[in-house]
Amino acid sequence: MAEAGVEILCVGTELLLGDILNGNARWIAQRLAALGLPHYRQTVVGDNSERLAMAAREAATRSRVLITTGGLGPTPDDLTTESLAAAFDTPLREHPELWQEIQAKLSSGGRPVAPCNRRQASLPEGADVLPNPLGSAPGMIWSPKPGFTILTFPGVPSEMRAMFQETAEPWLQQNGGTVGVFVSRVLRFSGIGESNLAEQVADLFEGSNPTVAPYASLGDVKLRLTACAASSVEAEALLHPLEADLRQRTGVLCYGSDDDSLASVVLDHLRRHHQTLAVAESCTGGGIGAALTAVPGSSAAFAGGVIAYSNAVKRRQLGVPLDLLEVYGAVSDEVVRAMAEGVRDRLETDWGVAVSGIAGPGGGTPQKPVGLVHVAVAGPDGCESAALRFGERRGRGAIQQLTLIRALDLLRLRLLAQS
Amino acid sequence: MAEAGVEILCVGTELLLGDILNGNARWIAQRLAALGLPHYRQTVVGDNSERLAMAAREAATRSRVLITTGGLGPTPDDLTTESLAAAFDTPLREHPELWQEIQAKLSSGGRPVAPCNRRQASLPEGADVLPNPLGSAPGMIWSPKPGFTILTFPGVPSEMRAMFQETAEPWLQQNGGTVGVFVSRVLRFSGIGESNLAEQVADLFEGSNPTVAPYASLGDVKLRLTACAASSVEAEALLHPLEADLRQRTGVLCYGSDDDSLASVVLDHLRRHHQTLAVAESCTGGGIGAALTAVPGSSAAFAGGVIAYSNAVKRRQLGVPLDLLEVYGAVSDEVVRAMAEGVRDRLETDWGVAVSGIAGPGGGTPQKPVGLVHVAVAGPDGCESAALRFGERRGRGAIQQLTLIRALDLLRLRLLAQS
Repeated sequence: MAEAGVEILCVGTELLLGDILNGNARWIAQRLAALGLPHYRQTVVGDNSERLAMAAREAATRSRVLITTGGLGPTPDDLTTESLAAAFDTPLREHPELWQEIQAKLSSGGRPVAPCNRRQASLPEGADVLPNPLGSAPGMIWSPKPGFTILTFPGVPSEMRAMFQETAEPWLQQNGGTVGVFVSRVLRFSGIGESNLAEQVADLFEGSNPTVAPYASLGDVKLRLTACAASSVEAEALLHPLEADLRQRTGVLCYGSDDDSLASVVLDHLRRHHQTLAVAESCTGGGIGAALTAVPGSSAAFAGGVIAYSNAVKRRQLGVPLDLLEVYGAVSDEVVRAMAEGVRDRLETDWGVAVSGIAGPGGGTPQKPVGLVHVAVAGPDGCESAALRFGERRGRGAIQQLTLIRALDLLRLRLLAQS
Repeated sequence: MAEAGVEILCVGTELLLGDILNGNARWIAQRLAALGLPHYRQTVVGDNSERLAMAAREAATRSRVLITTGGLGPTPDDLTTESLAAAFDTPLREHPELWQEIQAKLSSGGRPVAPCNRRQASLPEGADVLPNPLGSAPGMIWSPKPGFTILTFPGVPSEMRAMFQETAEPWLQQNGGTVGVFVSRVLRFSGIGESNLAEQVADLFEGSNPTVAPYASLGDVKLRLTACAASSVEAEALLHPLEADLRQRTGVLCYGSDDDSLASVVLDHLRRHHQTLAVAESCTGGGIGAALTAVPGSSAAFAGGVIAYSNAVKRRQLGVPLDLLEVYGAVSDEVVRAMAEGVRDRLETDWGVAVSGIAGPGGGTPQKPVGLVHVAVAGPDGCESAALRFGERRGRGAIQQLTLIRALDLLRLRLLAQS
């Protein structure tokens, strides 16, 4: 299976111990996608010469380019260059000009030159230097056999990124086997599960260019549309009718695209209509406000709110009548409606959103189990509320997150209905 | 090279496109390290049947256990189960009880049962179900050949984690080839940077058992202590003097360990002293309240607060005098102190925490640049405030997060001082 694509090999025992997230693999993957380079595999091995060499030899059987990160430093557990040389039976050769440069860099940075730094000046015979403008560890561009090239980078993200952008990207554009320009669009959905959305648009999954693929995370369902063409204009032209078709089929279920969030979409809508919003949060404890204020410029439409975690705060700061709390309980349509209207009236906004629920793990009863949440939206045309049941087993964080999403979505649908 | 360790294979085109970080690989890697299981390789492939099967066959030549994530959903690009069956020439067989269970789960969650969900009830012949307590996608435990077992998990992190902890960990402890018992402790620090902390304890980094390693992420500095021994009691005995030494050296800078957060530590302290807390948040927009209410049982000490995003809310809901806002501006010691005292008085709590700052990207001036934040803590023994400068370049989310951390830490130090 000669795939002739690009592979990424990340070297570092800290990755195998789970000490750090593999942010380098993600960053390189994003750059490869933007360059239109097919990329089929990522591998992680530890600081172990034999396993590193084996992974490189495997890559040579199926790929055109291998990009490695990590293991270029001066310490004994930095083994990448030597291991790759051994993997392809090639001797190392010191580059005197590289050794000069390493010494100059360390001295100008006020750091002592250690004997172990000298190892960094040796590369396999036939390899070119891949310059490191920020640090002392150089990389290499090396073809140990015809049609297979290795590019090495240090694991320090800032150095890796600078080297990639300055030297590797121009090289990859020339030599990487670019198949065209990829343009992607993510459409974002609310109020529908992944499998139901997938069934509605199943016929579109068959296409090969553009492609459609579904993704889901907690309370968040997405479709990724990707087109490949000779230019970004042509790729956009392929995407456009597909996106229009999907938006037509899904209607208000599609709330936005790409970097949109429910919060940003709601705030945009409020700003365009010169309306304002306040929130009254019990079980989310401020999470809805935090999601709204994560959006730059949110102050144009978001006034603030009340975190009404205790019943005393619900009464005094929102004016929820004591008898509602006593008769219906804090987690009820009656109370959550009074909260939404209370925060809207007291903060003098056009809209008020309120939530009250049982996030758990404690506090549930047979009548009002963990996962039961009431949500209300009070607006110029009245107040609407809903009871949601997320189930006991999801956990506190998920119940809070789903509450936030459903509350913002209820507001979004009300905003759409008024316009 | 029969390594007889554990491998991780993550399946998902979104990983190859760099759309998401591979948090699942990191989490599983951490669990394997804690279980004392050797783990030598991680691989990522896309939603491609042939490449998935090839990666699984390769793993079978060198490892004892393969853990896969992703590709168990109902949509056509979810290919893991079928591809693994094909990789080892094994037919699929529907498990009627699994299909019953999937239908029951979807129905009880109020979701319609789609025909594509039925695929999820089929496993390779001879495979056991690895139950999914949270979602509809079950995994499997399957030995396609002697001495090699595959465990499959969905890509949704909450489901994968629950399945791993409930079913896979006991299985791995029995069958995974543990080399000893690892016990780790994470010590958590606030108010000191990673490099300064590392200098203070540099001599301890030399140890080989137990080991000490520093980690840092935004506003969060940690030391991980790890000991390996024949039993967890012996490993704990190795850890204990090291932990005591570190706590002695670092004093109040060490705020907790393991799953502690600043919020949980502050809430514990308040509960023990029968005291209560309210927050008044401007630039964090509810984030401090959300961090506090993320902790189960927070209602015992946290009353709620006011999200005072606009100046009108600062005046009306917190009683901040208009002349303070006009003379000093909303981002000032004077206003943030009035907010902290206002929220404490109005919500009738013992403590009030307030923040007001410029999170950016807009709104900065030469006198009050983006990244300037004022924080105040009002308590039984008076009010204290501080001006923090996080710099313009960090970005809105980081400024909000650092504000939250520093505000909770200021409260923590005041709570420690009173006791």
